Amino acid sequence: MDSASSVRRRGRPPKFPACGGEDTRERLIRAGLAMLTEKGYSAAGLEEILRLAQVPKGSFYHYFASKEAFGLCLIDAYATFFAAKLDRWLLDSATPPLQRLQNFVDDAASGMAKYGFRRGCLVGNLGQEMSALPESFRARLIAVFEDWQQRTALCLQAAQQQGELSATADTDALAAFFWTGWEGAVLRAKLELQAAPLQHFAAGFRQMLPINV
Amino acid sequence: MDSASSVRRRGRPPKFPACGGEDTRERLIRAGLAMLTEKGYSAAGLEEILRLAQVPKGSFYHYFASKEAFGLCLIDAYATFFAAKLDRWLLDSATPPLQRLQNFVDDAASGMAKYGFRRGCLVGNLGQEMSALPESFRARLIAVFEDWQQRTALCLQAAQQQGELSATADTDALAAFFWTGWEGAVLRAKLELQAAPLQHFAAGFRQMLPINV
Repeated sequence: MDSASSVRRRGRPPKFPACGGEDTRERLIRAGLAMLTEKGYSAAGLEEILRLAQVPKGSFYHYFASKEAFGLCLIDAYATFFAAKLDRWLLDSATPPLQRLQNFVDDAASGMAKYGFRRGCLVGNLGQEMSALPESFRARLIAVFEDWQQRTALCLQAAQQQGELSATADTDALAAFFWTGWEGAVLRAKLELQAAPLQHFAAGFRQMLPINV
Repeated sequence: MDSASSVRRRGRPPKFPACGGEDTRERLIRAGLAMLTEKGYSAAGLEEILRLAQVPKGSFYHYFASKEAFGLCLIDAYATFFAAKLDRWLLDSATPPLQRLQNFVDDAASGMAKYGFRRGCLVGNLGQEMSALPESFRARLIAVFEDWQQRTALCLQAAQQQGELSATADTDALAAFFWTGWEGAVLRAKLELQAAPLQHFAAGFRQMLPINV
């Protein structure tokens, strides 16, 4: 499978990807991603995922040694899917960099609305649940956040180069602040069943950015 | 029990409170709060809570009609506990208002460190899990966040009155931004097992506040 840090060709973002080419495995991954973005790991029963994927239990263990192994695969699949989504917006050279970030926010708001604000961020869900999860998930989840922060910092650096953002701004710190707060905004959007928390957070973040002097 | 919006006398904040005076009920509430701040609702089995509280299952149903009714009681108990904690810091008239907010942040960092960063915010955990929870939880969780935001907005208004913050700042919007992002910071602190995300978020928030002109 693609690594989370690979740069995809831009265009329409992919659907939730699979970890391999096999059809059954792919169905399991898609069903797992749907369940974990909605319910998190603890509430997502394996039998419910199998039913959604229309895969018998015996086949599951042909592809995955355990629910834990499946969970790790889902984190990687989501990271790849989401990195491509971020690149689609944040590397869009036809758009001013700070507008690219807003385009990502608008896309996330549309994506959440499409599923009635029931699905959030898989990495946010699992991060929140970490005290109840296999310890092997922790380093992977931290690495995914760091990857997203790096992609966002690059966009902020482009904003510096184009004069939208002060040249002395700490783009790494700002990107970390964005991702910390953004996950809180996704949580609130799910809770309130509306996009307002996403847009309010993005507007507040935009206002706090140091302007070029 | 106290309502979430009542103002407690300041002083040392209470331990996790109970919904009533009875000892067994109190032990159930304490155990439930410990479990839900750590694991959330879905991963917290009733039997594990009963074992922690040393209460037989029959007794549980004497006090609560269901796990759902118990969950609602835990939300109220946590809201009361936390409102008192917020008031302790944010109404501390001997301290400049923006320092009061930082004192709350420092206290939260110490509180999370005390439990090895395994326990987070009960309302954040349940908000994140909302898609898998009884629908009756949603309005209560939203109301708790609004209560915390109002208490924080009052502190920011005190900062305006004392000249620490621009008189034209939108204190409600800033308080909402704080709580949206803060829950993301608590999530990251649990994931990374360190206080840095809390302090970085608080420092970023402090920097974004409009200064008096």
